[in-house]
Amino acid sequence: MSTKRLSRILDAATIAVIGASDDLAKVGGRVVHLLRNGSYSGTVYPINPKREAIQGLRCYASVGAISESIDLCVIAVAASDVEDQVNQCLAAGVGGLIVLSSGYAEQDAEGAHRQARLAALVGNLGVPMIGPNCLGVMNGNNGLAASSTFAINDRTLIGGKLSFATQSGAIGTYWLDMVLAAGHGVANWVSTGNEADVDLAEILDYLADDPKTAVIGLYIEGIRNGALFRRAAAKALAMRKPVLVLKAGASSVGAHAAASHTGALAGEDALYQAFFDQHGICRVQSLSEMLDVSRVLLMQPVKPGKRTCVVSVSGGAAVLVTDAAIAGGLEIPEFSQKIKSRLKAYLPSFATPQNPLDVTAQVATDPDLLGKVLRVIVESDEFDEMVVFCGGLGNLQQQLSESIIHGIAGWDRPTVVIWQASRALAVKMLGDAGIPVFSEIPPAVTALCQVTRMAGYWDAPPPQIPPLEASPVLQDEGSIPSCLTEQRSKAFLLQRSGLKYPNGVLVGSGSEVKGALSALKGPFAAKLQCPEMIHKSGSGGIRLGLSETAAVQAVNEMLALARSHAMTCEGVLLEEMIPIQFEFLVGLRRDPVLGPLLVIGRGGVSVEVDPDIVRVFLPATHTDVLTLLMRLRTSKLFTGFRGKGAAPLDEIARVVASLGEMFLADQSIREVEVNPLVCSGNEVMAVDASVWLSA
Amino acid sequence: MSTKRLSRILDAATIAVIGASDDLAKVGGRVVHLLRNGSYSGTVYPINPKREAIQGLRCYASVGAISESIDLCVIAVAASDVEDQVNQCLAAGVGGLIVLSSGYAEQDAEGAHRQARLAALVGNLGVPMIGPNCLGVMNGNNGLAASSTFAINDRTLIGGKLSFATQSGAIGTYWLDMVLAAGHGVANWVSTGNEADVDLAEILDYLADDPKTAVIGLYIEGIRNGALFRRAAAKALAMRKPVLVLKAGASSVGAHAAASHTGALAGEDALYQAFFDQHGICRVQSLSEMLDVSRVLLMQPVKPGKRTCVVSVSGGAAVLVTDAAIAGGLEIPEFSQKIKSRLKAYLPSFATPQNPLDVTAQVATDPDLLGKVLRVIVESDEFDEMVVFCGGLGNLQQQLSESIIHGIAGWDRPTVVIWQASRALAVKMLGDAGIPVFSEIPPAVTALCQVTRMAGYWDAPPPQIPPLEASPVLQDEGSIPSCLTEQRSKAFLLQRSGLKYPNGVLVGSGSEVKGALSALKGPFAAKLQCPEMIHKSGSGGIRLGLSETAAVQAVNEMLALARSHAMTCEGVLLEEMIPIQFEFLVGLRRDPVLGPLLVIGRGGVSVEVDPDIVRVFLPATHTDVLTLLMRLRTSKLFTGFRGKGAAPLDEIARVVASLGEMFLADQSIREVEVNPLVCSGNEVMAVDASVWLSA
Repeated sequence: MSTKRLSRILDAATIAVIGASDDLAKVGGRVVHLLRNGSYSGTVYPINPKREAIQGLRCYASVGAISESIDLCVIAVAASDVEDQVNQCLAAGVGGLIVLSSGYAEQDAEGAHRQARLAALVGNLGVPMIGPNCLGVMNGNNGLAASSTFAINDRTLIGGKLSFATQSGAIGTYWLDMVLAAGHGVANWVSTGNEADVDLAEILDYLADDPKTAVIGLYIEGIRNGALFRRAAAKALAMRKPVLVLKAGASSVGAHAAASHTGALAGEDALYQAFFDQHGICRVQSLSEMLDVSRVLLMQPVKPGKRTCVVSVSGGAAVLVTDAAIAGGLEIPEFSQKIKSRLKAYLPSFATPQNPLDVTAQVATDPDLLGKVLRVIVESDEFDEMVVFCGGLGNLQQQLSESIIHGIAGWDRPTVVIWQASRALAVKMLGDAGIPVFSEIPPAVTALCQVTRMAGYWDAPPPQIPPLEASPVLQDEGSIPSCLTEQRSKAFLLQRSGLKYPNGVLVGSGSEVKGALSALKGPFAAKLQCPEMIHKSGSGGIRLGLSETAAVQAVNEMLALARSHAMTCEGVLLEEMIPIQFEFLVGLRRDPVLGPLLVIGRGGVSVEVDPDIVRVFLPATHTDVLTLLMRLRTSKLFTGFRGKGAAPLDEIARVVASLGEMFLADQSIREVEVNPLVCSGNEVMAVDASVWLSA
Repeated sequence: MSTKRLSRILDAATIAVIGASDDLAKVGGRVVHLLRNGSYSGTVYPINPKREAIQGLRCYASVGAISESIDLCVIAVAASDVEDQVNQCLAAGVGGLIVLSSGYAEQDAEGAHRQARLAALVGNLGVPMIGPNCLGVMNGNNGLAASSTFAINDRTLIGGKLSFATQSGAIGTYWLDMVLAAGHGVANWVSTGNEADVDLAEILDYLADDPKTAVIGLYIEGIRNGALFRRAAAKALAMRKPVLVLKAGASSVGAHAAASHTGALAGEDALYQAFFDQHGICRVQSLSEMLDVSRVLLMQPVKPGKRTCVVSVSGGAAVLVTDAAIAGGLEIPEFSQKIKSRLKAYLPSFATPQNPLDVTAQVATDPDLLGKVLRVIVESDEFDEMVVFCGGLGNLQQQLSESIIHGIAGWDRPTVVIWQASRALAVKMLGDAGIPVFSEIPPAVTALCQVTRMAGYWDAPPPQIPPLEASPVLQDEGSIPSCLTEQRSKAFLLQRSGLKYPNGVLVGSGSEVKGALSALKGPFAAKLQCPEMIHKSGSGGIRLGLSETAAVQAVNEMLALARSHAMTCEGVLLEEMIPIQFEFLVGLRRDPVLGPLLVIGRGGVSVEVDPDIVRVFLPATHTDVLTLLMRLRTSKLFTGFRGKGAAPLDEIARVVASLGEMFLADQSIREVEVNPLVCSGNEVMAVDASVWLSA
């Protein structure tokens, strides 16, 4: 899938509008109006068989009647007429399509069928189609506004570096309004609608490559193509091009509502979070936060590093800024002796030269003090970013602003200024000097934290991305995979991945027990092997700590249990009980959208009561698994706690990475759960395991 | 301490200003100016021995020269002259004092001495003094602005229902600016400065009683008198008068900076959080959030209940609102069949009648639809609050606003409206109709969540408050309490609170062991009893699972250990090992500011690795303890998990409540730790315990 195909839409030089109208209240009227009355310099062809001219332009009866080659055709007619128009467009060889019309999957089953037919039509020819049921696209840098949005009613579309792709037209409209009101310019803006053909992943891929886009914003309800999305996100990350995501459906109620809203697959939110974290994507909580983060990214040089200096004209505010910064993951290191002694030369005697720094009310009589202090910090090379707090002191706005501007001049790190109360002049002066100003502490610090967290990915190893063919959309999604019994699961994992398990033997009757156990060491565990009984706990299918005699009885009773329930039975697994020092849970599964996933957790009772779990999308190297293990909340437990030995982390990581490789390589393995994976001395083995294979 | 004494300050009819000046750049000039040029109708007496008149008022040489009775005297002279002036004021019988001057504890040790002398002077006579090092007070309802703040430079002080007391003058200034800019009025505003005499607790107490104050805001760095603060907070809660707190020092770095800022004792943030939660206090993260919550409280009727209805013109926004609401603790219940069928009559066929409700783009052609839908919700009695989301649709602001106003007319529950993009008219219309309008989702939902959480306390049992004499400020704070050995601690707790412990015996030599153990059942634990060795784990002072023979050896070795380290030794405690089903940690301690505190936690390894702890300030009844236990994150573990029996919660609560009573009644018990408190069958006992007594 070439990313160039979207440029036929977003850089279109010729645009036909099917359903064009003189009536600006109509969608087809608005599209022509926006294309005509902005700065778009391409050619617009209104199409309406009933009219000679529309909005002063010559009108055509059909797209086939236009002699020039058409890059983009925007369709704004009733859903029942769209298919015919699309066929005409394809016959005329248009470069791309936008279907604004609604009445598709968002409406009813018949609409869903109509949508599937459209997708097939364009898919066969590889002609990109955005929509249906969308608000279209914009390219601020060439004035192209192939959209029916009302957002540029009161605002003028201007070109710039921010791009936004949205699965909700309304949210796209609010973003546009907010960005334009703040004086920023737009590179590309895409309302994706029902994503029958072009989806968010393809747009992200395009925007990652787009040289005019500096920051990518996304509003996501559900991703359709996780594999492509990952590749696109990784590409953006490699280019240090920030991707900011507002994701709806964080709550299950929200997810339910999102599903009903567009029919997109809204997966479990924790999975999305892991997905975003793994690919350096910045998740924001609101459009305002997205704009705040974008402002800092656009205005300030950003480098990795968390060492933050707080300088404030108010001690109280210094503390509040510090609280927010620490909560957001920044560090507030102490000043070196060198900084302290330099600061002492400027500060009044009653001020303490510490970070956070309260320059005290002294600035009211000596506004230059602020700039001198900032200069000391900037020249120290001890900090990665700065928060400056000002407020009140309305009559000193000009002097203090100049002081700040001079103080940080030439610094190649981000500075944000918070200015509370009487601030209009300061906002203007600092803004003109390229310094973002906020009116409150939390949004400023949150924006800085987000920027810093993103930059943190730049120094880290890039995320691993599986080959595309390793994560196709599952073909047999509807079918129920079959689960192997424990004994078969263990044999499978030993053979395929080398995962060991305790010594044991499968018996088919009580009379076999004594002979079978002769080579084994008690006490024993007895586990009934019935495919219908995967969860044996509490069902009478498992007994622990058995002597040989007790094992005979257990086997007889379990086999009787299987018979009485008429279950398929492969026998009873008798295993040596091994001493357990540490236990983990390891899971492998395939999210139908986001792809193959590894879950590692603390084992034992906490799995259900107080889960401590980390997730990563495959592939995961040995090093990745080690990192994951250390991200467990209770990682102290297995790194040598209270004089207990440490767990054999290297061996655990080897075993888990090997399971992940196996899972990634073989699509027929649908799910694996090893619970618990235990450490017995330096040995790592599966005490219980289940494998599900494609039916 | 009568709360009336503050009314001599806040309702002063006669005010003398010592250090009055014609120069508005000087503090004494500003104070006279603000008192003269606002709406204050009381009498102002400038005092300055060098002048005949100041700012058009007759000037006096000293406070003693004024014949009338003076309610309030504001002092704005150099710190070195303040003491003399205070003496003159006290001699003249003034009702109260505000010392604006700085140069006290915030500056240096000498300043701290000066401050202590001031406190003693006024304290002896019971004359209230605010400050020193403060910005003074305001009473918006009588125009009294006895303050040097610059906040009412650009704004006019107007009367109203919001009060604010602040430990940072600057933060107070920002609050004033924000509140006045938003068009709200001020009841009382107090900058407390160094709190040498009047502290935040006394002001809270006053504001709780003040009939003109509807909402109390506080900026806190550290509370000085926890006992009085609790009583005041409980009084406000009983009156359903909301208390909103912005607390600085949430991070340890922040706390450190706060301590340096004003010298206030900034306690551990988690303790403050428990303190706030227990007393129905609403903690906000910023002044903006405080204002948002205040707006909802002032504009809307509030009742307890979390059932929230979300109605939106955008499906995407509906999901985002829902996510925020669920994250904030609100509930989004499904509509009843009755609501659904009523809604179906209004909604277009493709809309789904579900909560959150997307009224769809249909409102663009039928703005009345929104009001009709809201009417259905309001009439259903199924919801406690409503969030309405609007956005874009700029040309329909008037119709949609009217639609909302009609839709919810007469409802006695809170409604907040979020309106994104083109919104000026809507903000005005809805605001005039008493409906708070927000420009973004998170602040609106946060405000509603906070209001709902506060109202939740109104239906709950009121917080228990200990008698004042039970929580005096500790007199022997500096002394190091002595710790009893385990054996003495257990005997103490048995005698004083009835807490049981395993059968055991104290031996002084290996030769005593056999005789001593004759009546006990093995295996045994051996624990060295040295006051210098409280934490025996890892020190060789504890051995578990011993036979009688092993016990003899353990005793001999431990005694030798004590001798070799020259430790005071009371012998070795030999105890029966009891089977343990559940283990807890129980701690009792006295926070020097906030008072006596009970800590309950999950016992065992999690105490250090993954703490699961709840806190409550005493007293705590049997029921309180049961509630606390259920608030543990892992409470599932002891309520009958995986077929295991439940812990004897009633007995645990009885034991813990009894320990709490003992601790509250006897100030000489400085600290108690029972770790673990175990359940063995239905018995609850201490396996280890430490008691610290006043030296």
